[in-house]
Amino acid sequence: MKLNAFFHPAGHHIAAWRHPDAQADAGVNFRHYVELARTAERAKFDAVFLADTVAMHEGSLEAQSRAARYVAQFEPLTLLSVIAAVTERIGLIATASTTYNEPYHVARKFASLDLISEGRAGWNLVTSATEAEALNFSRDKHLEHGARYERAREFAEVVTGLWESWEDDSFVRDKASGRFFDPEKLHVLNHVGEHFQVRGPLNAARSPQGRPVIVQAGSSGPGKQLAAETAEVVFTAQQTLEETVAFYADIKSLAEKAGRSADAIKVLPGVQAFVGRSRAEAQDKFDQLQSLIHPAVGLSLLSGMVGFDLSSYPVDGPLPDLPETNDHKSRQALSIALAKRENLTIRGLYEKIAGARGHWTIIGSAEDIADQLQERFEAGGADGFNVMPPHLPGGLDDFVELVVPELRRRGLFRTEYEGRTLRENLGLPYPHHPAARVAQAAE
Amino acid sequence: MKLNAFFHPAGHHIAAWRHPDAQADAGVNFRHYVELARTAERAKFDAVFLADTVAMHEGSLEAQSRAARYVAQFEPLTLLSVIAAVTERIGLIATASTTYNEPYHVARKFASLDLISEGRAGWNLVTSATEAEALNFSRDKHLEHGARYERAREFAEVVTGLWESWEDDSFVRDKASGRFFDPEKLHVLNHVGEHFQVRGPLNAARSPQGRPVIVQAGSSGPGKQLAAETAEVVFTAQQTLEETVAFYADIKSLAEKAGRSADAIKVLPGVQAFVGRSRAEAQDKFDQLQSLIHPAVGLSLLSGMVGFDLSSYPVDGPLPDLPETNDHKSRQALSIALAKRENLTIRGLYEKIAGARGHWTIIGSAEDIADQLQERFEAGGADGFNVMPPHLPGGLDDFVELVVPELRRRGLFRTEYEGRTLRENLGLPYPHHPAARVAQAAE
Repeated sequence: MKLNAFFHPAGHHIAAWRHPDAQADAGVNFRHYVELARTAERAKFDAVFLADTVAMHEGSLEAQSRAARYVAQFEPLTLLSVIAAVTERIGLIATASTTYNEPYHVARKFASLDLISEGRAGWNLVTSATEAEALNFSRDKHLEHGARYERAREFAEVVTGLWESWEDDSFVRDKASGRFFDPEKLHVLNHVGEHFQVRGPLNAARSPQGRPVIVQAGSSGPGKQLAAETAEVVFTAQQTLEETVAFYADIKSLAEKAGRSADAIKVLPGVQAFVGRSRAEAQDKFDQLQSLIHPAVGLSLLSGMVGFDLSSYPVDGPLPDLPETNDHKSRQALSIALAKRENLTIRGLYEKIAGARGHWTIIGSAEDIADQLQERFEAGGADGFNVMPPHLPGGLDDFVELVVPELRRRGLFRTEYEGRTLRENLGLPYPHHPAARVAQAAE
Repeated sequence: MKLNAFFHPAGHHIAAWRHPDAQADAGVNFRHYVELARTAERAKFDAVFLADTVAMHEGSLEAQSRAARYVAQFEPLTLLSVIAAVTERIGLIATASTTYNEPYHVARKFASLDLISEGRAGWNLVTSATEAEALNFSRDKHLEHGARYERAREFAEVVTGLWESWEDDSFVRDKASGRFFDPEKLHVLNHVGEHFQVRGPLNAARSPQGRPVIVQAGSSGPGKQLAAETAEVVFTAQQTLEETVAFYADIKSLAEKAGRSADAIKVLPGVQAFVGRSRAEAQDKFDQLQSLIHPAVGLSLLSGMVGFDLSSYPVDGPLPDLPETNDHKSRQALSIALAKRENLTIRGLYEKIAGARGHWTIIGSAEDIADQLQERFEAGGADGFNVMPPHLPGGLDDFVELVVPELRRRGLFRTEYEGRTLRENLGLPYPHHPAARVAQAAE
């Protein structure tokens, strides 16, 4: 079972920063992250995984000023470079958008992190779908779904092409003859496509794992297809066992149709686990965080979800009839159905949604949590999990001290790293250089 | 006297990587950089300064494969983040181009480095003028000079504007009331200009030095004007004392005309110093590196300089008559004049040019070097220097062990850091937030 430690600054739960033990300045406190990474490495997690958004999240100023999400936090690549310096074995996965970046920069920064960490970098390839991001990059609105994925596909092609600029043994560095690299081992990309023209070569050597591991989180049709063709790790949000198993089978079969081995793509659903020494203690931990969701934050999140401003309705009253919406059709319908099914007030509904924001949430003792992870793992629903501690550092400590030993007792999780690189630890194949490609002179 | 340590991977001299003591894999060896940074910090240098180019340098494959310049090396921001983790006081200056970047990314990454290092980051603002870079960013040729500087000016305006998204004390993080930031202290940029539309705010807090220090190296008319308006440190290449003093006076007077104090902009020329325990030893060190310039590298560099391919001419023969050129007019004329004046062969000419590439080169004992630095410093030519060790780590060790103590004996250089931030050590004013600006709601 593979395990990544997925970190929002103060934790995954929307109210995490208000937890009594939370580091409220977590987003700009690098010692906090250093401690988290060291804890995760001691527990032999595969990787630290950082989300990202190139904008503050939308919402009313009242809600923004209470939510603490993407408001003031480190940029992931600079932060992971620091973490690379203070760890030795754990992988380092950062998110970078294909929508508002240039492939040469992304290829180079991840190659640099991969070299600095001696083969521990991973790139979480995402597309940007919020207007807040578009407005920071000279656009009036965000790219529509199809265009985003077309750009993402070509972006990934350019990045992987740039990562093949050099064969593994290109750099001879022979001082006596004055030969720094073997000209035969340089491969110039010369990419000309719909969205990008990139000549190359990349001015960075290959790393001990060949190239960074590619992670992706697409769940739509085009998203899954892109993942099946390019991703080595798939990060996904699934609620029920049935959905989880179906998604897993779908991704593996799409990968095989794309000519890849099912083993070369690992599916790691997200899980927010509240762990206690007893079930009651775990439930208390959950209830404590839920009670800290400020109504302004919950209402703003729910309003965004249903495409309608609920801030003037009483939070302890019922969900009003909502006007039809174009942009949020399916999420609106799901929210209405959930409120109806469980007879929820507005508060009840946002409490269901805000805490985990779509990710599987489980509450219980170490045995309970291990049972549930084991079930999904053995049922063919997961190759492992992205563990999203509800609050930090406490939620990570709970998982490491209680759940990890239980998983080890069951023979499900490693006691020592298998390899030196992220790729080796994840059990992914080494991406051999396509050196058969005809070498082209740089000019 | 302010001193930065300016590092190319193996050293500033073109043949540095071939030096017997050089780290030939310097560009991808982070332990090498960690050692350099620690040495520079022990000597109380103001900052480590890294150059950058987002492409491999142009030239014949034969010359490229021998020159080792920008071929395989870390990206500066990821590298400086690592260095931030292993140092405490020294500044961290990285180059980032305004031509092929987005201001939001640059503002954010430097803000992140500034927070990680607790106020030690500097941004060296450059424009990109090579075709090799253009071709990596979906362009057929590089932007012409005027357009590059117009874009750079607006870019700098957006970046500094984003760095003012938050007042110093914006983040109250009051767990009890659930208030993370004070909405009154958020300032949304809403920039709409010729090249960029950027709403903001930046999702990063201000750092202990307010914002990163801005460094610039413009020497042309528009370059100097931009520096006078925006730069806090000016990096420049000057040969003679007269030129140095004239440039210094020019920059300071332009800054005053732009409404700034002359003290708020520090001029630091580059200097490549060959230091020995005797003059003869210093000269030997110089001769040794000069003898390691491979003819293919020297010819390629000189050909680029004069705009004419010299590779088929005998290196020990005279410079042939050169056809007129548009792109390289002034550099061609300077090269022809230098060859004529000193009666140089092609080899003699490229040896003059290749080693230091325009920077002031001095050779001598510690006293000689200190004399020359002191002369320029006291004549009003420099507030300090960008020290460019010819080879690394040896050239830095020589400067630190021999020249720095001599400068201290003369009372010219610090024995302890004056402040905690780069800005404090450079003696630059704190950039107070223009909080009088009307606060605007995020939405």
